[in-house]
Amino acid sequence: MKPLTLPPRLLMGPGPINCYPRVLSAMSTQLVGQYDPVMTAYMNEVMALYRQVFNTQNQQTLLIDGTSRAGIEAVLVSAIEPGDKVLVPVFGRFGHLLAEIAERAGANVHTIEVPWGEVFQPEQIEQAIRQVQPKLLAVVQGDTSTTMLQPLEHLGEICRRHDVLFYSDATASIGGNPFDTDAWQLDAVSVGLQKCLGGPSGSAPVTLSERFVEVVRKRQHVEAGIKDAHHHDAAGSRIRSNYFDLPMIMDYWGEERLNHHTEAATMLFCARECAVNLLEEGQQAVIARHQHAGNAMLGGIQAMGLQPFGDLNHKMNNVVGVNIPDQVDGEAIRHTLLHRFNIEIGTSFGPLKGKIWRIGTMGYNARQDAVLHTLQSLETVLRQQGFGLVAGAGVDAALKIYDEADQ
Amino acid sequence: MKPLTLPPRLLMGPGPINCYPRVLSAMSTQLVGQYDPVMTAYMNEVMALYRQVFNTQNQQTLLIDGTSRAGIEAVLVSAIEPGDKVLVPVFGRFGHLLAEIAERAGANVHTIEVPWGEVFQPEQIEQAIRQVQPKLLAVVQGDTSTTMLQPLEHLGEICRRHDVLFYSDATASIGGNPFDTDAWQLDAVSVGLQKCLGGPSGSAPVTLSERFVEVVRKRQHVEAGIKDAHHHDAAGSRIRSNYFDLPMIMDYWGEERLNHHTEAATMLFCARECAVNLLEEGQQAVIARHQHAGNAMLGGIQAMGLQPFGDLNHKMNNVVGVNIPDQVDGEAIRHTLLHRFNIEIGTSFGPLKGKIWRIGTMGYNARQDAVLHTLQSLETVLRQQGFGLVAGAGVDAALKIYDEADQ
Repeated sequence: MKPLTLPPRLLMGPGPINCYPRVLSAMSTQLVGQYDPVMTAYMNEVMALYRQVFNTQNQQTLLIDGTSRAGIEAVLVSAIEPGDKVLVPVFGRFGHLLAEIAERAGANVHTIEVPWGEVFQPEQIEQAIRQVQPKLLAVVQGDTSTTMLQPLEHLGEICRRHDVLFYSDATASIGGNPFDTDAWQLDAVSVGLQKCLGGPSGSAPVTLSERFVEVVRKRQHVEAGIKDAHHHDAAGSRIRSNYFDLPMIMDYWGEERLNHHTEAATMLFCARECAVNLLEEGQQAVIARHQHAGNAMLGGIQAMGLQPFGDLNHKMNNVVGVNIPDQVDGEAIRHTLLHRFNIEIGTSFGPLKGKIWRIGTMGYNARQDAVLHTLQSLETVLRQQGFGLVAGAGVDAALKIYDEADQ
Repeated sequence: MKPLTLPPRLLMGPGPINCYPRVLSAMSTQLVGQYDPVMTAYMNEVMALYRQVFNTQNQQTLLIDGTSRAGIEAVLVSAIEPGDKVLVPVFGRFGHLLAEIAERAGANVHTIEVPWGEVFQPEQIEQAIRQVQPKLLAVVQGDTSTTMLQPLEHLGEICRRHDVLFYSDATASIGGNPFDTDAWQLDAVSVGLQKCLGGPSGSAPVTLSERFVEVVRKRQHVEAGIKDAHHHDAAGSRIRSNYFDLPMIMDYWGEERLNHHTEAATMLFCARECAVNLLEEGQQAVIARHQHAGNAMLGGIQAMGLQPFGDLNHKMNNVVGVNIPDQVDGEAIRHTLLHRFNIEIGTSFGPLKGKIWRIGTMGYNARQDAVLHTLQSLETVLRQQGFGLVAGAGVDAALKIYDEADQ
């Protein structure tokens, strides 16, 4: 068998993206045992690190072993008892995903929608909360399908006033855009590593407020195979999933160290390194780096004569949608970029399929050189297809935006 | 922050164990995009490799992104509609786990039990099938909690005769003991990497027969956010989990390449390397290596005057249970082995908690030197605690068993 041989792609799509080299190195660390004091100390350290990443004091801040949607499902299936009402404001594909996962967990799901490319006003969400009176509000912060960033800062107060649990999935936005769990009064947050945190997919950090923990603890049921005489089941209905049972997962991460899954140690080392990388560079500095890269990419795209997609006042820092001009073949452009330039940009889903490209500037790739190479290459490929543009305009605009940011 | 700094433990417990160095190296490989033809080619290659690992022709052979119990839950929640009858023969902790996961999926679960340390006769299982008439039989092959290996070779024929789906979790045994999916007429198998395959926890290979696929396809529902006009929902009830929805996962791994999760690329590289390592050394050779290491460890334990646990005719090759002698403090022994010798051995669960140690010889650690160091160190620590034994007897017995195996 040939050894693994991968081309050196520059991943400038909506994620996954290239990992930070130090994150890759951490993943080749040899293991220790599951209950080795060295391992449990690293588990505790990871909890502390992600409290900083999430800007929270929540004790229950831990990893779900799976991709980002594993984190979503763990939060929803643990909180939702069949028939519970859940409100999901949908402004892109991942809103549909939250609704779908909540439905499968047995929820009575109500959605409100805005056209793809827009976000919600807090009043729209409050009005829906009044009508629906849900147990839980589930909303995506950044939806890569549309590149929009839903403002969350006013929603926590509304949820508290109406006694609604407030959950957000911030997989696509965390690390590249401000996120403040406690100040925004969030009760549950789930994320992934494969966007601005600069890791691979496969681990889903979550944080849970005390209010949220109280709700899920009412459904605590310990596994038969490890149950001792001192374990008593709670009165609430048993959570429909064993793998995503947050009370059991909390007891594995907590002082009880009650056996559940075998922690995916390599992904834990990876998640640790993603957090250390963010915190050592500084959360504000990393967000600013994403903002500069995003601005330069946007400016370059516009200078090339391309039209960005959606409401630019609510664009995520880390990804831009680009309307594919009528006269070019969007998939042929992507194909040439990949196969001749080793650069990947993204296509889109659902109503935007074939209509926009999505170009990301995330994590390790929120870098000036990555932005400049991508703009130059896109320009070259567009020129080859006969698209009318001023040669050099895109990259020059990006250089200028970087120069101004440096002053 | 200090860089990751882990002590060089020799992991001789029931798993996780030390990874093969080549597996660790593979995990520091930089990524390509999710739909990059290089990535999808590796996904196809991994499917082909695991068909060899499982000894099957099953097209649907793929990875579930999560730990081994994620694979269990994907199989069970996709197959079981609420009220379906499931039969679980329980001979240790992981039988209880299968029952528990099936119950949470809504099954009407029937269990039969033998004392920990024993396995079932096929007739016992057939009798229960006659009584219960289940939709599915779920049985663990190797249960590390007792070190027992349930023979499976006669159960497939029984299941076909009674029109029952036959599922086994072989996480603890695959790679170190014979496993033959097609010859044994299994309909679904799930495993993990962290035992004899020599990887970390975090990816769960599964294989599904056509018969099984037909059952779960009846419940196919495509996600709203990516649904096109040509997608039609099947008549069966929607699967209760999005993350573990096997029809959607199959369409992501299949030619449809319909977006579901973002494949955990690093864990895929890791799973690939685990399989390549097994197949390059040769499945029979690896099983023989586990058998020799297991025999040498058992012989050494017995020569030291310790009593192995359970029915030795049905012991897994890769782990032995050792009755903790009355006069020694089992946890103190484990503590000294870990902190002075950097060797980890295991404790146990439930009825065996505090009564046996579990000593593994798995994957990379199914090696002569690992066996010899462990026996010598255990002897030294037992002597220090005043346990009467003939110095050198354990390691000498193991050396002799290795010498005889070489002839």
